[in-house]
Amino acid sequence: MAKEELVVLGRDGADGCCPGLLTAPLDEARSIELAKVFKALGDPIRLRLLSMIASRAGGEVCVCDLTPAFDLSQPTISHHLKLLRQAGLIDCERRGTWVYYWLLPETTDRLAGILTRPAGPPLPERAGTAADA
Amino acid sequence: MAKEELVVLGRDGADGCCPGLLTAPLDEARSIELAKVFKALGDPIRLRLLSMIASRAGGEVCVCDLTPAFDLSQPTISHHLKLLRQAGLIDCERRGTWVYYWLLPETTDRLAGILTRPAGPPLPERAGTAADA
Repeated sequence: MAKEELVVLGRDGADGCCPGLLTAPLDEARSIELAKVFKALGDPIRLRLLSMIASRAGGEVCVCDLTPAFDLSQPTISHHLKLLRQAGLIDCERRGTWVYYWLLPETTDRLAGILTRPAGPPLPERAGTAADA
Repeated sequence: MAKEELVVLGRDGADGCCPGLLTAPLDEARSIELAKVFKALGDPIRLRLLSMIASRAGGEVCVCDLTPAFDLSQPTISHHLKLLRQAGLIDCERRGTWVYYWLLPETTDRLAGILTRPAGPPLPERAGTAADA
């Protein structure tokens, strides 16, 4: 469903992994692409929806099981789910009356990779300096 | 500087690590706290600033070295830096004329941890199902 809307995070390495956010300055194009995914995560309702979908045993969840957890209308929940889907974090399929959602773990895996510090010497110790300013 | 503004992400385990976003439904309080950090990352300028700060050899960068990379005013850059600081992603110190910034790697480490899937059986194979909808 709506595959063309999915954001594809960079796959620059032969292993499908990504240059980190922490290892080199991001270029403009990549920062725009990546910001869309973080923006989708930058909302409490969407984070709760994503965690409910991702943690569901069996790997998928009916929209009918998501909406009762929120004091929000069905269209509002659907809008949040659409933003998560457009960010490539989840996908869905309609079966009869209901739509079923599941996590796209390759996107969260890539975000985790992007936020992971490269192996190497530790950063300089900073404890205490902030209070001196 | 402004330590009290920093968002402290949950430290629920004895090892300082965090319950994942992907392992259990997030509660409302935690989703609000976490969304603030992701929202700070949900902007291309802030992502580029963070990557410039994090990847700088020596571990810190003068604001005077950040602004020339952008076609934006100094107050605009300072505003973005303030949002990154309020999210607990960076900290800073004034020395004479300039302010120096550095990464707070414990926050990015925690986000990476939150986005990492728990060890266990892989999720059901989903390839192809989206196209059937």
